[in-house]
Amino acid sequence: MDITLADCAERLLHAGSILVLSHSFPDGDTLGAASAMIRVLRSLGKKAAFRCEHDIPDKFKNLFCGLDPLFPEEFDPELILALDIADISLIGSLGDLYGDKIDLCVDHHAANRKFAKESYVDPSAAAACEILVDLIGRMKAEITPEIACALFTGITTDTGCFRYRNTTARTHRAAAEMIGYGADAGEINYRMFEIKTRARLELEREILSGMEYSSDGRVSMIAIPREMVLRLGATQDDLDGISALPRQIEGVLIGITLREKEDGTYKVSFRANEPVKANVIAALFGGGGHAGAAGCTLDLPLGEAKRALMKESEAYLGEIS
Amino acid sequence: MDITLADCAERLLHAGSILVLSHSFPDGDTLGAASAMIRVLRSLGKKAAFRCEHDIPDKFKNLFCGLDPLFPEEFDPELILALDIADISLIGSLGDLYGDKIDLCVDHHAANRKFAKESYVDPSAAAACEILVDLIGRMKAEITPEIACALFTGITTDTGCFRYRNTTARTHRAAAEMIGYGADAGEINYRMFEIKTRARLELEREILSGMEYSSDGRVSMIAIPREMVLRLGATQDDLDGISALPRQIEGVLIGITLREKEDGTYKVSFRANEPVKANVIAALFGGGGHAGAAGCTLDLPLGEAKRALMKESEAYLGEIS
Repeated sequence: MDITLADCAERLLHAGSILVLSHSFPDGDTLGAASAMIRVLRSLGKKAAFRCEHDIPDKFKNLFCGLDPLFPEEFDPELILALDIADISLIGSLGDLYGDKIDLCVDHHAANRKFAKESYVDPSAAAACEILVDLIGRMKAEITPEIACALFTGITTDTGCFRYRNTTARTHRAAAEMIGYGADAGEINYRMFEIKTRARLELEREILSGMEYSSDGRVSMIAIPREMVLRLGATQDDLDGISALPRQIEGVLIGITLREKEDGTYKVSFRANEPVKANVIAALFGGGGHAGAAGCTLDLPLGEAKRALMKESEAYLGEIS
Repeated sequence: MDITLADCAERLLHAGSILVLSHSFPDGDTLGAASAMIRVLRSLGKKAAFRCEHDIPDKFKNLFCGLDPLFPEEFDPELILALDIADISLIGSLGDLYGDKIDLCVDHHAANRKFAKESYVDPSAAAACEILVDLIGRMKAEITPEIACALFTGITTDTGCFRYRNTTARTHRAAAEMIGYGADAGEINYRMFEIKTRARLELEREILSGMEYSSDGRVSMIAIPREMVLRLGATQDDLDGISALPRQIEGVLIGITLREKEDGTYKVSFRANEPVKANVIAALFGGGGHAGAAGCTLDLPLGEAKRALMKESEAYLGEIS
């Protein structure tokens, strides 16, 4: 059932002990939201704990400084809260424990499956943390610098440092407010966006060297074989955002990224600029998504996969031009 | 003489005809400010014209849509306004015409030389356009979508899309306000930051391939020979921000970029992370700057220049560690 933000605040204020869940492969938004909420709940004298299927990546560990223990052994929550979780499958193995027990979900994904007993979903928010700025305001909790940092981290990571089209005036106002409460925006952005590992750098260099074009530069394609990832010691973090590279080239309307998975199949990401619709091309290969970003899986040798993708992309461009 | 922002508004409201100047090699901030101010002045029934030593780069041409003629042949201004200009030398050849005639300068550079008859300099502003948001507010002019776009462009380009440490809560509030007045932030950021020319891409690839490290990866260095720039057909725009690359690598404390100039000497840029001070190293080579960013010129063959820079950087790191 959908509830209002005021109801969310009331539910949280009435519960004595709350378990906060983040989604698997946790990012800055789900973790920033969890850190901020746990700090708020504890400051209000409540018990609050945290669970996520995966460990907190190094990059985000500082969000949880001083929050030990994150999950006390004795913990039987009155309320289970899912933050930034669009579907129950996104908590992975924790689904066995909590799948049908989630009381409240606060999220910004339009595709939220409303798996919780009560949900507050605002797709106009760029980040779950943007919603939490309002929610925490309604809870009348003090926003400490740690809470401000956590919320700013979620907002800046989910908007690519205010670059993506999901960024609104409200996003900037929320950021301004968090800086006012002590978020060190310069330091957070430096850590989140500026530092590259050497593995990432090598990866970009090799990928760019192998970039292919067709249709007078309107299609560009890169491939990331597993061999390359293993040889360079690149982590999941290092691969983050790689599929944005091909579309960044001037004149490119369709950018395609093929990434080899463990089973030898290829995860294909399409990124398109108007008037091209990425999901139309992905659908030709049994995939889907949005106009700007879509994907599919191909079980073909790399050369064949590339040829098939180039051929269909060229045909599509021929049709729409 | 320093004057207040209210005085600036009054000077502009009292003048019937105003000439607006941008600095040479114009960027998004000086051009965004000029475009916004000319539109405001014309909307208030005044004559307003624009001069800059250099042509408006393609990337910023749309800021001046519908503003013809930018400089009418018959134009004898009552007030000459310099925007985002820290020193009279930065208007280049226009200095002969206007050098001692500039009535008012509105700028955000702490190093402003106060060359105008009256100046308003606010170094706490991330961009001249951030100051103009307040100034135009005081002039009680209507902020049209075109004006909002121009001011947003200046703010986002001077802050690296809200990433640099000059970004404050006020910067985000100004951005929120401009989006509210119709600035298409997603489109502007896409054009300013996301699109790369093929020449830029090739340039990055070649530069990254040749990146050198020393002192256990705490020093990194790249070189951009003129031959490379000419061969790839890279423009000044393509070279923009290149010197940020070496410092982006994890663990790097000093990032050094050598760029060959037309006369065969090298322009050297230092970018440092704390506790290293870029200006201390630059000073060893007769240069200067800030702790984070500094520069010098070296008249040495490339190999010798590199060795000298590596040697002094290593010695400096030895001293401070």
